[in-house]
Amino acid sequence: MNRQAKCQSQCPIARATFEIGDRWYLLILRELSMGSRRFDEIAAQTGFSSHLLSVRLKRLEADGVIERRKYQDRPVRYEYYATPKGKELDGVLLQLRAWGAKWGGYPKASKPAVKLVHKVTRAELDPRGPLPSLNGFSFDDYDATLSPAFEAEREERRKAFAVKRGKSA
Amino acid sequence: MNRQAKCQSQCPIARATFEIGDRWYLLILRELSMGSRRFDEIAAQTGFSSHLLSVRLKRLEADGVIERRKYQDRPVRYEYYATPKGKELDGVLLQLRAWGAKWGGYPKASKPAVKLVHKVTRAELDPRGPLPSLNGFSFDDYDATLSPAFEAEREERRKAFAVKRGKSA
Repeated sequence: MNRQAKCQSQCPIARATFEIGDRWYLLILRELSMGSRRFDEIAAQTGFSSHLLSVRLKRLEADGVIERRKYQDRPVRYEYYATPKGKELDGVLLQLRAWGAKWGGYPKASKPAVKLVHKVTRAELDPRGPLPSLNGFSFDDYDATLSPAFEAEREERRKAFAVKRGKSA
Repeated sequence: MNRQAKCQSQCPIARATFEIGDRWYLLILRELSMGSRRFDEIAAQTGFSSHLLSVRLKRLEADGVIERRKYQDRPVRYEYYATPKGKELDGVLLQLRAWGAKWGGYPKASKPAVKLVHKVTRAELDPRGPLPSLNGFSFDDYDATLSPAFEAEREERRKAFAVKRGKSA
């Protein structure tokens, strides 16, 4: 499965958006950057059906953007991680964060959904402040703390997911 | 028409991707950043049908990402421009360019599809080199020169578009 072969444009923006230009892929990468590793948690937080999430994870894996690591044998279960290629999209996510914070229009958000503090310098990366250098930028270099409101939102999604799963089981 | 009201997440990445997380929107913004202003040229270069392009331009306009400016009265014709909100996605496009150049796998591209040279410093912005500061980054600050291969690709699309239009007229 080599999807890249389908985009033959000279333009690297066209090639990049061909591969990851779909909000769901970026949201999956956001989940991985936040440390979500398990299928169910990613399903809950993205709102995907199991089928669609499975298809999309396979596509990201085929594209070399994420990788699976087995953590259990019976039944076989995998955790999902961004590859180096996938991690290099952290800068794109950071910019979307800044853009969304400035233009996304969500007045209720009085503080950042995720507070990012650099592990070494302890400087906070304010989504409305200036961007750091994005050469080699990685969320791995930051401690992340979720705001109570965002934590509540995510917990609500977990509950909704559990209810849905209970109904379909 | 206020689509933003539909994404109530605390997460600015979710809100941003809700608005522009579709490859076609990014490709439309790429066209605008390259100076394409006319409907037909954008249609030719994105490969959209007139109907779909029209719907998507209206959506971007409703979201405040682009604006129309009338350039002709009979018949009424508009040119399309990125708004300040839209221009602030130039940094995202630049990062996708860098990522696509590094990971997008297009061996035939021996030189950049678009050579970007800063209007003041005359420094070239190599897609495989380090990123400049993305605070306030704008393609407007660069002279763009298309490679012969990319120019040929774009000319081919114009021809294909003209043929398609001829057939449907």
